[in-house]
Amino acid sequence: MPGVDDLKGLFTPVLTPFTASYEVDHDRYVKFCKWVVSQGAGLACFGTNSEANSLSVEERIELLDLLVEAGIGPEKLMPGNGACALPDAYKLSAAAARHKCAATLMLPPFYYKGVSDEGLFRAYASVIEHVGSSDLRVCLYHIPQVSGVPISLNLIEQLLARYPDTVVGIKDSSGDWANTKAMLDAFPDFKVFPGAETFLLDGMRNGAVGCISATANINPGPIAELAANWQADDAEEKQAELDKVRAVVTEYAPIPALKATVAHHGGDEAWRTVRPPLVELDEAGAAGVVGKLDGLKFQMPGLADALA
Amino acid sequence: MPGVDDLKGLFTPVLTPFTASYEVDHDRYVKFCKWVVSQGAGLACFGTNSEANSLSVEERIELLDLLVEAGIGPEKLMPGNGACALPDAYKLSAAAARHKCAATLMLPPFYYKGVSDEGLFRAYASVIEHVGSSDLRVCLYHIPQVSGVPISLNLIEQLLARYPDTVVGIKDSSGDWANTKAMLDAFPDFKVFPGAETFLLDGMRNGAVGCISATANINPGPIAELAANWQADDAEEKQAELDKVRAVVTEYAPIPALKATVAHHGGDEAWRTVRPPLVELDEAGAAGVVGKLDGLKFQMPGLADALA
Repeated sequence: MPGVDDLKGLFTPVLTPFTASYEVDHDRYVKFCKWVVSQGAGLACFGTNSEANSLSVEERIELLDLLVEAGIGPEKLMPGNGACALPDAYKLSAAAARHKCAATLMLPPFYYKGVSDEGLFRAYASVIEHVGSSDLRVCLYHIPQVSGVPISLNLIEQLLARYPDTVVGIKDSSGDWANTKAMLDAFPDFKVFPGAETFLLDGMRNGAVGCISATANINPGPIAELAANWQADDAEEKQAELDKVRAVVTEYAPIPALKATVAHHGGDEAWRTVRPPLVELDEAGAAGVVGKLDGLKFQMPGLADALA
Repeated sequence: MPGVDDLKGLFTPVLTPFTASYEVDHDRYVKFCKWVVSQGAGLACFGTNSEANSLSVEERIELLDLLVEAGIGPEKLMPGNGACALPDAYKLSAAAARHKCAATLMLPPFYYKGVSDEGLFRAYASVIEHVGSSDLRVCLYHIPQVSGVPISLNLIEQLLARYPDTVVGIKDSSGDWANTKAMLDAFPDFKVFPGAETFLLDGMRNGAVGCISATANINPGPIAELAANWQADDAEEKQAELDKVRAVVTEYAPIPALKATVAHHGGDEAWRTVRPPLVELDEAGAAGVVGKLDGLKFQMPGLADALA
């Protein structure tokens, strides 16, 4: 089983392909995941950018099983287990533990807003106790602008005090460097992943272990490279290159823009489909994101072959 | 099968009891639902105040089956089918259609924020097309302060144009009378339910068909009575009495306060349990809400016998 110190580097919240009738496309999924891994990234499958909260529990568990069957090692897997209902979180977390995944990326229950730290502690504790496995490792997921439910420093402290061997890290997708820095300062041995490569270099210099970023669906190699070689002399230049790619994507709705980019560089228009409530980019949008990335000499090495 | 004109009066987003280990308590659930129906209300089971988004799909379908087995007529049932993932919404909606429920109360997918009306239209359309039954009737559910995903007048107009026989109404829990009034004015034959009895009398005078309110868990008889007799001379006084009860509940976290009230008047402390991420009221809180309601000579007629 992967050790907690394997929890580092780049993890990609990998996109989920759908057929035209919105079914999960298993074949395209496995091919794409293998390509991402070949570029040096792990798979934070079932993250926000995976449209994972638009997938049923059964769909997510089936996809995780497929990745394992495809030979992707558990040290490369950080499946999300976000769910509003505890029974759903139990099932998803148990699946991650069963496969001895590096960790599971766990949203708080996100329907009810304004809930207390005590309530969130009980929710996380209930999942950990219910799974009851030393193979479960939880990476918390702080993305308040989407979930509506922040994870406070106080909650992290409570969880670490009670479950020091299980609650091992956090993805901070707040986009608020001050918050990421506060987590890094408060919990020195905690595995902190900024939720975008924007803070990759600043993060590594302050004790982060890597990052988990949507853009890693299209730019995994260069992000993974900087995560590994952040102490190199050209790190600032490398960070600036990453930032340029990200800036293009964030001009658009990110998930449809990433899928349009995969479709273009993979030579497979089917990749553009998103599941409702999302909507794919229109032709002008897709041409816009692709064209601007072309202007940066952006490439996705080997993608077309990998998806063929 | 109930006709669309049966969709009127009071529906209660009925509370869901849990055991100490957070399992759904089937026996207490059925007894409580029968009491609510005996007071003249229908059951908007699996609403926000039902902690329904803390229940798995399977738990909700099992509870709906239990209510039908218990002899509660379909005209009394408006089960919620809120889900982030389309496959989950398919299953919940199909269950409502199978039981020929008066309607199903349908949240938009609520994880992704800032989604377009086109995306929400596709989500609702996908569910309606997938169920593919003339027995499906959808009541939209607008509660933007919790879901984070509003339902616009434009979206309603699109849905009514495409699915006039299926999309039959809306629960407006925004607490914004101007929004409720705009819906009533824009869509005359649409079944509009204000999401609290606060707007019951104003609503009925402007074309609403009833209301769906959390407080109907503890005060169903008087609310149902005003919904039926809103043209009576004493309607204003009756509305003022309802408002006093509601004002006590909303001083506290509503779901725990309602459960504490049921526990007290039903003589069954087990009713106080909530599922995480919610937290029950502490002793002082529970005594506070119960004491303030006692000060209003508040009663829940027959509850203790019904729960025994």
